[in-house]
Amino acid sequence: MDRRIYFDHAATTPTDPRVVSAMLPYLTSAWGNPSSIYFEAREARKGLDDARRTVASVLRCKPNEVVFTSGGTEADNLALRGVATAARGRGDHIITTAIEHHAVLHACDALAKEGVRVTYLPVDGEGFVDLDALRAALDERTLLVSIMYANNEAGTVEPVAAAARIVKAYGRHIAVHTDAVQAAGALDLDVDALGVDLLSIAAHKFYGPKGVGALYVRQRTPLTPQTVGGSQERNRRAGTENVAGAVGLATALRLASDERSARTAHVAALRDRLLDELPRRVPGTIVTGPRDGARRLPNSASFAFEYVEGEAVLLQLDLLGVAASSGSACTTASLEPSHVLVAMGVPERYLRGSLRLTLGHENTMADVEYLLDVLPPAVAKIRALAPAPPVYMSRSTATGVSNKPRGSGDDGGLRAGT
Amino acid sequence: MDRRIYFDHAATTPTDPRVVSAMLPYLTSAWGNPSSIYFEAREARKGLDDARRTVASVLRCKPNEVVFTSGGTEADNLALRGVATAARGRGDHIITTAIEHHAVLHACDALAKEGVRVTYLPVDGEGFVDLDALRAALDERTLLVSIMYANNEAGTVEPVAAAARIVKAYGRHIAVHTDAVQAAGALDLDVDALGVDLLSIAAHKFYGPKGVGALYVRQRTPLTPQTVGGSQERNRRAGTENVAGAVGLATALRLASDERSARTAHVAALRDRLLDELPRRVPGTIVTGPRDGARRLPNSASFAFEYVEGEAVLLQLDLLGVAASSGSACTTASLEPSHVLVAMGVPERYLRGSLRLTLGHENTMADVEYLLDVLPPAVAKIRALAPAPPVYMSRSTATGVSNKPRGSGDDGGLRAGT
Repeated sequence: MDRRIYFDHAATTPTDPRVVSAMLPYLTSAWGNPSSIYFEAREARKGLDDARRTVASVLRCKPNEVVFTSGGTEADNLALRGVATAARGRGDHIITTAIEHHAVLHACDALAKEGVRVTYLPVDGEGFVDLDALRAALDERTLLVSIMYANNEAGTVEPVAAAARIVKAYGRHIAVHTDAVQAAGALDLDVDALGVDLLSIAAHKFYGPKGVGALYVRQRTPLTPQTVGGSQERNRRAGTENVAGAVGLATALRLASDERSARTAHVAALRDRLLDELPRRVPGTIVTGPRDGARRLPNSASFAFEYVEGEAVLLQLDLLGVAASSGSACTTASLEPSHVLVAMGVPERYLRGSLRLTLGHENTMADVEYLLDVLPPAVAKIRALAPAPPVYMSRSTATGVSNKPRGSGDDGGLRAGT
Repeated sequence: MDRRIYFDHAATTPTDPRVVSAMLPYLTSAWGNPSSIYFEAREARKGLDDARRTVASVLRCKPNEVVFTSGGTEADNLALRGVATAARGRGDHIITTAIEHHAVLHACDALAKEGVRVTYLPVDGEGFVDLDALRAALDERTLLVSIMYANNEAGTVEPVAAAARIVKAYGRHIAVHTDAVQAAGALDLDVDALGVDLLSIAAHKFYGPKGVGALYVRQRTPLTPQTVGGSQERNRRAGTENVAGAVGLATALRLASDERSARTAHVAALRDRLLDELPRRVPGTIVTGPRDGARRLPNSASFAFEYVEGEAVLLQLDLLGVAASSGSACTTASLEPSHVLVAMGVPERYLRGSLRLTLGHENTMADVEYLLDVLPPAVAKIRALAPAPPVYMSRSTATGVSNKPRGSGDDGGLRAGT
């Protein structure tokens, strides 16, 4: 296994050596408890405070609006449960989308068991949330709207700012949350430009460490803590702070922000090559999610193959030295088809054959060309071994999916190989 | 600030260099997402699995009974809320003690708001829980008993095994939880010997990193996850795993277990010197918590000074190069007197003057002697500066607290300086 190419940056990213270097002092010399009052503690407190200021500078918010968590999942859970609990008297209705990460969807399920009504907004064929449906869903009892910034499976960048304007025009008291776990590092996180009251990020998605995330909470947003005990994080999240983790998150976020334009240009070129070429080379392939690069995560290329088991493709790719995924790493073991692809209306025959390639700045065009070379025979081999493989006459007749321009509405947003 | 002596190991501990070394590969080369299925992920998965097996070997449980969390506070919250939610139909009553950490007490407060009844067992003057009160408190609707293994402020080692036997004799279906956050590293964690169904630990209390803990959950203990999303930790705690943190926790726990008898003998000798000598040298001093070393954390020496502000003592000690605390680091900023000392019946005049010295294996007898030399003049200076200092005639008349043998019941377990 000499050559390894990592194309699963949406699952997690390598930790940037500069991030590890920034963390190390807080694992070795500055190990004090930041809540204590002596010398050893002050070093740790300073590291934590500096980290909070750095995160705030990227989000363009106040440092005390940043709550460090153990990751994106906890941040999402805290946002949804925290707001729903705090606002109980005033409302009992949450609006979200059908394609959120399970951290949001399952938090909604738990709240629904407690009597909260949840509206799941539909998406179009490219995964864009239906803003008319959002307008129609808002009611007197709505307390929270949660719309992800970018979808982890289809790369769709949601119109969060437009959604927030609609919500705030209806009622200022309705909180707007965005799960920016997949967007952070790739897209701008200015919380005022987005118009959100809460925003979740996870360090390990942008070359930071695992086990640490953050939730932005706009001042005066009622939030009931979900982990209670000490008075850390201004009583919004108890527990001795993961100082090294917070420093790692902040360092990674700062680097991602400083280097964003260069990183974006680089990965977008690789992405576009994949989006253009892969469907040409593998018969019976559609692109899932947007084709318009401006409305898609710059590092995300996602596909689905007709009548192929995605897992088989992944195992072949692994043997060929390529790490990729079929969707969310959090549901790898699941046998269910992706709720995202189902919500987007991807036809049944494609649902088990999804392939997500998510790029990082350390990937090269040579990596992409290698994949484009090895993938077609791998898929062909799997199809040949399948119990009842459909016959593929030629590339040009590969799919039955129409090729209308994006937004025509009736093609499910799917693109056949052209 | 040349000489620094750290006497606050109950707040947090230095990270053992061997622990950092064990973690580093998971921050650098083995950074994959353990839920993924390719080569990079398998390295991370193996690290996580090995860590879980190591923890299980120390707790003498099955690996799948170990749930990694972001720390002791989350572990406590998960235990209490998780069991209370899962067992809702069968019961609505929790029994705990008046001297638990706030992670337990505040979780109980939150549950009480949801209609759960909570009984807080009293403790005696040394902090030992009243087992007769436990017997009397158990009822048909009791679903959980949570009694800490060792108190973080007074060092009291609670009779957890005896309590568990009482609970199980009453009803097998009542879950027993122990917050072992302060005990881990110092005391045996055999969950069967303790008879507990749930047990919380936090890595940074035993020379591991901050931001990671674990909850032991005995098989078939109903537990509703409190952080939902992916299917990590066998659906008991969602979120991409903090692999480096888990490896750090496991390595630190293994080292603490292997080196426990040597570490314990060393710190207990330092502790005993402090417990014996400090009240002799500082007039108006009592020992808080047990005097019997076998019933006290081996590394914990705690005191209270009459008519002295503990904060002032800590600031003086910090200037003299000593890090110490007045109690829990999680409530450092609080102006309330310690709920632990209040529950133990410590007289009012001592309540603001607590000093907790918690030792580590890197401390030496010279450190202890240094403290014994510098503390008396520091306290004298503070008393001299106080607005209306009481007059201390001589050491022998220092306190009004009686000096009866432990267990006589009417002295609040307090010991005057002799």
